[in-house]
Amino acid sequence: MSKLVIVGTVAFDAIETPFGKTDKILGGAATYIGLSASRFDVDSAIVSVVGGDFPSTYIEMLKEKGMDVKGLEIVPDGKTFFWSGKYHNDMNSRDTLATELNVLETFNPVVPESYKDSEVVMLGNLHPMVQMGVINQMNDPKLVVLDTMNFWMDIALEDLKKVIAKVDVITINDEEARQLSGAYSLVNASKKIMEMGPKYVVIKKGEHGALLFHKEEMFFAPALPLADVFDPTGAGDSFAGGFTGFLAKTGDYSFENMKRAIIHGSCLASFCVEKFGTERMQNLSDTEIANRLRQFKSLTQYEMELT
Amino acid sequence: MSKLVIVGTVAFDAIETPFGKTDKILGGAATYIGLSASRFDVDSAIVSVVGGDFPSTYIEMLKEKGMDVKGLEIVPDGKTFFWSGKYHNDMNSRDTLATELNVLETFNPVVPESYKDSEVVMLGNLHPMVQMGVINQMNDPKLVVLDTMNFWMDIALEDLKKVIAKVDVITINDEEARQLSGAYSLVNASKKIMEMGPKYVVIKKGEHGALLFHKEEMFFAPALPLADVFDPTGAGDSFAGGFTGFLAKTGDYSFENMKRAIIHGSCLASFCVEKFGTERMQNLSDTEIANRLRQFKSLTQYEMELT
Repeated sequence: MSKLVIVGTVAFDAIETPFGKTDKILGGAATYIGLSASRFDVDSAIVSVVGGDFPSTYIEMLKEKGMDVKGLEIVPDGKTFFWSGKYHNDMNSRDTLATELNVLETFNPVVPESYKDSEVVMLGNLHPMVQMGVINQMNDPKLVVLDTMNFWMDIALEDLKKVIAKVDVITINDEEARQLSGAYSLVNASKKIMEMGPKYVVIKKGEHGALLFHKEEMFFAPALPLADVFDPTGAGDSFAGGFTGFLAKTGDYSFENMKRAIIHGSCLASFCVEKFGTERMQNLSDTEIANRLRQFKSLTQYEMELT
Repeated sequence: MSKLVIVGTVAFDAIETPFGKTDKILGGAATYIGLSASRFDVDSAIVSVVGGDFPSTYIEMLKEKGMDVKGLEIVPDGKTFFWSGKYHNDMNSRDTLATELNVLETFNPVVPESYKDSEVVMLGNLHPMVQMGVINQMNDPKLVVLDTMNFWMDIALEDLKKVIAKVDVITINDEEARQLSGAYSLVNASKKIMEMGPKYVVIKKGEHGALLFHKEEMFFAPALPLADVFDPTGAGDSFAGGFTGFLAKTGDYSFENMKRAIIHGSCLASFCVEKFGTERMQNLSDTEIANRLRQFKSLTQYEMELT
């Protein structure tokens, strides 16, 4: 079975959307990535850190869902990373209300010995030097995927560029792609980002779908139009988990297979937003996923004779 | 050969975008629709009005491109409709700088006798009562498609609802769909609009593509990501022209064939934005169109085994 290493935050989130608000609930990039990736037949391990305040029931749940948590450090007298945010009415933008780094401030990721030969590495959103620390521990992975955000472009751009130069795939949202590249059109932005190192660029456009760029090639997958989006938190990470989980399972890192990976990522992200936090990702049947993949197919596939 | 009646403005436009600005150039919904629809093997007629200031060279061009202009009324002592607008940097929004209705104020559309039995009617953006006047002259068309905009929702909503109740397909942008339906999500908005009459709803999202709704079915076509968009003017009308031109040519008004029509519309719209005004639509080879249809196909089509 292929191995997948996932580094990212495991966190408490407090979320407010037009549909309601939550107290501190389970969140974090690695949590969403792991819940999504574990839908595939892969051996996935989370590398992250939590405080002594992190409920053991959460850790049990992650294990039950198929994640290896040997790389999940627990700092008994530390506090778990906390993020709080409020979404605007259109759900496409949000304000961060609080960010308490806590145990993340001194986080030094340690990849478990048995996962250093993993085929795929998913570097969730974290300080670029933490991401680099994980790459340096790996033993020649087949595919390294990096997610990041504008925050690191603002405060650690040089570090970020160093880690970007080392990865195969970068996933980034449209505004971040523009900020990182200095180009407005996503076609031009992706070209400039590929010049920084990654052979593949995935640009996430939220409700407007995702674009995959590779050399001169381009692929687009829409998000599934939904009657109601309850909470967008974790959608990008669920996407990344589906993308890397599928690639790790199939062991095929071609552009053709990345198209399928993008569809799987979009499919899982479409569930994530249907409930608050991780609730939907924790309660999701294989049948529901299979049916939704069919919906995705009928959403964009057509027959046309070309001359 | 199938017949297509196109009603809409034939106009002078003055356009400003971040790439430059134009003097008064040829514009208007019917112009763009006609240039796009005439790429197909259909007998298309424009029903519109211009003033004595409208250059005969423009009329010759329309005829040369295959449009019948018997229904293009010329008011010798009148002035042609004039619109001027300025696009913002993101090209997704614009300010209208001037709207001079001129000959449009008293326009009474007359469908030429030989086109009253047309299979397809494309009602371009105009006062809903003008659109209704055209429907009333038609002799049982197979498909009536209506385009409209927020302006008519603001000033003539009841008239608009009457004409919407009479058409098979409505094309509308995302903000307008929200305004017309009072629903935020496009899934819910399309449901409410279908309850008003149309069996098919096409929601245009500009650079984010177009959605087709019919009963419980949904189809999505992206816009082609372009390195540079010079001038979005006419893109929606070029889309409508490709959509109706293809449907008129094939005579197949099924949901499956509408998917192909949406792709043809998106394809033609992708050319329209590459130059100012109608320039690109006037100079477009069949080979360029065939190649771009291939690009559209590779942009979204994938092979995936479903369980």
